[in-house]
Amino acid sequence: MALHHFQPDHYHVTIGSHPPVLRLHDGDRVVTTTVDAAGMDGHGIAVTARGNPMTGPFFIEDAEPGDTLAVRLDRIRPNRTYGWSGVMIAPNIVDPSYVPALPWPAPDDRQRAEWHVDVAENTASLVHPAVRPLTLPLSPMLGCFGVAPAYGQAISTATSGPYGGNMDYRGFVEGVMVYFPVLVPGALFHLGDGHALQGDGEIVGTGIEISMDVEFTVHLIKGSTINWPRGETTDTIFTVGNARPLDQCVQHATTEMVLWLQQEYGLEPLAAQILLGQCVTYDLGNMFDPAYTMVCKLSRHLL
Amino acid sequence: MALHHFQPDHYHVTIGSHPPVLRLHDGDRVVTTTVDAAGMDGHGIAVTARGNPMTGPFFIEDAEPGDTLAVRLDRIRPNRTYGWSGVMIAPNIVDPSYVPALPWPAPDDRQRAEWHVDVAENTASLVHPAVRPLTLPLSPMLGCFGVAPAYGQAISTATSGPYGGNMDYRGFVEGVMVYFPVLVPGALFHLGDGHALQGDGEIVGTGIEISMDVEFTVHLIKGSTINWPRGETTDTIFTVGNARPLDQCVQHATTEMVLWLQQEYGLEPLAAQILLGQCVTYDLGNMFDPAYTMVCKLSRHLL
Amino acid sequence: MALHHFQPDHYHVTIGSHPPVLRLHDGDRVVTTTVDAAGMDGHGIAVTARGNPMTGPFFIEDAEPGDTLAVRLDRIRPNRTYGWSGVMIAPNIVDPSYVPALPWPAPDDRQRAEWHVDVAENTASLVHPAVRPLTLPLSPMLGCFGVAPAYGQAISTATSGPYGGNMDYRGFVEGVMVYFPVLVPGALFHLGDGHALQGDGEIVGTGIEISMDVEFTVHLIKGSTINWPRGETTDTIFTVGNARPLDQCVQHATTEMVLWLQQEYGLEPLAAQILLGQCVTYDLGNMFDPAYTMVCKLSRHLL
Amino acid sequence: MALHHFQPDHYHVTIGSHPPVLRLHDGDRVVTTTVDAAGMDGHGIAVTARGNPMTGPFFIEDAEPGDTLAVRLDRIRPNRTYGWSGVMIAPNIVDPSYVPALPWPAPDDRQRAEWHVDVAENTASLVHPAVRPLTLPLSPMLGCFGVAPAYGQAISTATSGPYGGNMDYRGFVEGVMVYFPVLVPGALFHLGDGHALQGDGEIVGTGIEISMDVEFTVHLIKGSTINWPRGETTDTIFTVGNARPLDQCVQHATTEMVLWLQQEYGLEPLAAQILLGQCVTYDLGNMFDPAYTMVCKLSRHLL
Repeated sequence: MALHHFQPDHYHVTIGSHPPVLRLHDGDRVVTTTVDAAGMDGHGIAVTARGNPMTGPFFIEDAEPGDTLAVRLDRIRPNRTYGWSGVMIAPNIVDPSYVPALPWPAPDDRQRAEWHVDVAENTASLVHPAVRPLTLPLSPMLGCFGVAPAYGQAISTATSGPYGGNMDYRGFVEGVMVYFPVLVPGALFHLGDGHALQGDGEIVGTGIEISMDVEFTVHLIKGSTINWPRGETTDTIFTVGNARPLDQCVQHATTEMVLWLQQEYGLEPLAAQILLGQCVTYDLGNMFDPAYTMVCKLSRHLL
Repeated sequence: MALHHFQPDHYHVTIGSHPPVLRLHDGDRVVTTTVDAAGMDGHGIAVTARGNPMTGPFFIEDAEPGDTLAVRLDRIRPNRTYGWSGVMIAPNIVDPSYVPALPWPAPDDRQRAEWHVDVAENTASLVHPAVRPLTLPLSPMLGCFGVAPAYGQAISTATSGPYGGNMDYRGFVEGVMVYFPVLVPGALFHLGDGHALQGDGEIVGTGIEISMDVEFTVHLIKGSTINWPRGETTDTIFTVGNARPLDQCVQHATTEMVLWLQQEYGLEPLAAQILLGQCVTYDLGNMFDPAYTMVCKLSRHLL
Repeated sequence: MALHHFQPDHYHVTIGSHPPVLRLHDGDRVVTTTVDAAGMDGHGIAVTARGNPMTGPFFIEDAEPGDTLAVRLDRIRPNRTYGWSGVMIAPNIVDPSYVPALPWPAPDDRQRAEWHVDVAENTASLVHPAVRPLTLPLSPMLGCFGVAPAYGQAISTATSGPYGGNMDYRGFVEGVMVYFPVLVPGALFHLGDGHALQGDGEIVGTGIEISMDVEFTVHLIKGSTINWPRGETTDTIFTVGNARPLDQCVQHATTEMVLWLQQEYGLEPLAAQILLGQCVTYDLGNMFDPAYTMVCKLSRHLL
Repeated sequence: MALHHFQPDHYHVTIGSHPPVLRLHDGDRVVTTTVDAAGMDGHGIAVTARGNPMTGPFFIEDAEPGDTLAVRLDRIRPNRTYGWSGVMIAPNIVDPSYVPALPWPAPDDRQRAEWHVDVAENTASLVHPAVRPLTLPLSPMLGCFGVAPAYGQAISTATSGPYGGNMDYRGFVEGVMVYFPVLVPGALFHLGDGHALQGDGEIVGTGIEISMDVEFTVHLIKGSTINWPRGETTDTIFTVGNARPLDQCVQHATTEMVLWLQQEYGLEPLAAQILLGQCVTYDLGNMFDPAYTMVCKLSRHLL
């Protein structure tokens, strides 16, 4: 249960079987940093190319396909004051006939809103010449993280799948325990794409993008196989489906929840389904990325 | 601003341009009842055929296409103790390959869970021989209500559209103000399909189905045109998209929210979209009915 | 097996349980006309309001829910020379980000292409000031036809469902036998929305819209129940799924084809599925209307 | 314009930036072989692991991102007599409620139909103990081929995208010219997954899977950028969209066709769209793989 301080000096814009930067054991904790989606670090310097650059990957000793990797997000804290976000709702989020009425930018428009992020005050304040002031409470999260996909694949950090990836779900905040299926030896955990705050659906294509100080702890669950990412907070358990269209996300997440309730909580199929029928909730992670994300949630107190 | 007591003696399983049961003026309040989805009234008697039978329609004087009808749901209260729900997640909600593993009922199985609903205690208690006890807090809502659709259509209460209908959204509870586009003279408001409680998505095909005592107040907003149902609670405003797949529901609801923010709250397009980008939330109404429902929500305090 | 000449004097823009215009017996043939989608007749006169006005409905004696109505399209022939079509691909047919680049019309633009339809020459010739000449062979078809839907519904002729409706499939040409599930007593057959020609998908929102001389023969198949429209040509059998998204259309049409092969052609499930796996073809009916249409086809010589 | 004979000795189950097996120049022709989807070669020997193993990749000299690679499929010929196919329609292709009625195999069932493929006779004959004989004409095609995706990605040969991949479109037969966007230096062309025959949609999850003798010629089109695969036959031009759901495939393919008509055939936007509106056809490539495929086609004689 070692504590590692890791300062990245290179990043990846795919999640894949890249050479590991560090080897971790079950129970180890890592203190590290992530750059923002555009590759800018905590000093506002572009240290790598844009596109959700990932810190890592971290190799977890003894992790083998068929196991589960648990990652506790111990700390996710913006490490600079400059955040930025999109300003126009993505055209796939509105009625097709409304698309021309969106506020399309002029060709030379930078098309970014800038935000002043104050961790001490826990606020993000909009800085935009054309828009009245707006101050929002922070809710720092990771947009993109996960383990290397199967078959030696290396998949763009634009998208997501059973291995996690760019899920852009505002629920991945400090304190959450996230579970991933181990798909390659060592699991190879990647992380990045911090958001100081994000709405449901990531409908402007970004949260408030920012670099982060991150701490996480890994746990290896040998011989336990899951199909899609799962998570736990103090109050809820949840499962994550990444696909298109949203309907399919719901199918993946709901199936995973049913399996979880039956296999680990010992509910009979009927009991699980009657319970979910009246008590389940769903969150819309993102409807912007190549794969969308829906989350299936259940309150712990019902279990 | 009259108060009407209306006891239905017939019901409709379509929402359409049926003969009105009562003529209301702007500000009138109605005290009435609804039968459950199977046509059973507060005495547990099947008084009409199954399929979300509607009380109404109510004709609102002076309502013309292009106007908006506001309906305040003043009271939605179960008027009997017997509720029932589905027991199996619908096959379109899980992975296609998982469908055979669902707990399909034997041919002679009634396939219903029964619930004891106690309004004084505010609880619904599961009564099922094969499943351990479960008691849940009530959250009474209307599953299906709305105004007559355009072009003289009469559309099954199984589905929904711009006119409302079987939206099966757990947010339609007491105290909510709901807005509908007026599509025919008199608007012709219908209501029914009460649920003592329902999860997101109505994934077992029902909430806890029950007959209700309902009170509502109508307001007519002349010359104000909306495209999709809207709603207001104490804390939020929301818009409703009814379609398939869920992606299209999001498109309808988001477009309607953008229009609302710009037209009634006076936000510039950029301001509206930056705000929604970081603050919007979505609820999954239903993913069971022929048209699914997604709801786009924004906290009032941001406006 | 009577021959009826029927000249409509009113039309419907919903398909529903309207008063029948004529009562037919099994084997009867009808010679009639249809107006175009905009309500213009063979003389180019607007005789009714726009929106796919239907001729009919025709009541078929003895038809009861659970039966099948077969309609042979004996003759579909444009009865004037003026046809018109849309000029812009609908925004839901292209990438959302490409929508602003579509040739959106100026506010005062009529937004129609006009065509000279010559039945003797079997040609449609484009008449458009801004576009070079184009002459295409005719393939006259009905875009919208079907039987009254269940539950007393009356559904806009903009859309379609198990009862048929606005399927806008270019395969509904002269000589085709079409089967519909009978959903109300008398079946109540409606027809209209003729196209001199149409591409797959009806991607500009129209075919070449035109009024028609139509002849059809009805047959009643007692006690035979189908779920979705079916059709037969000299060479193929086909089934029709109407829904959104296209995936769901394929699901409906394929399921109906599997049932057909097993129930009427006596194929074992494995035989039916192996055969379809290597030999099935699909046509895209429309991707413009509220419900899309996909058609599942199999060559007769394989049966 | 060299002729290369290349006999593979290893294969890839991802399409990615793997070390090239051969370096080709514009105009070069390659004679090679592909194993079947299960990794069996022309002698029926499993020479590599299953999962659409790819021959290649082939590096094309001077190919740079932004260029287009044209590959002419000169010859696609089964090189053994044993073919195999799936026997059950995939559960995502039928109505969710019909899934349990599919002919699910017993646990020990191999779940394959076997076919005797006779190239001289041009036939595939079904060999299945439970099903009556069936003989079909061959139409040999490649299911999976394409160029390395951008960003150093390596993506499973189960799926497809702008770079091609597992499109499983029965139109990729001998004589077709296929165009791919070059996304990495050298393009890195991969090929495999031959089918002796396949229906639309690949609805049983396979064509008649078989190893192939393949010949192809590469051409490099410098400075010409496309977004999705395109193809040409003697009679048609076509574009390919790979995504989910089918609706999105149609959007990609149609947008690519509109761009093609405008940019290379010089049609005005209105002319292109009026023409497509009445003349376009679509093929369903596959509805089985993680990304589905729809093809947008236009007859050459209209151009």
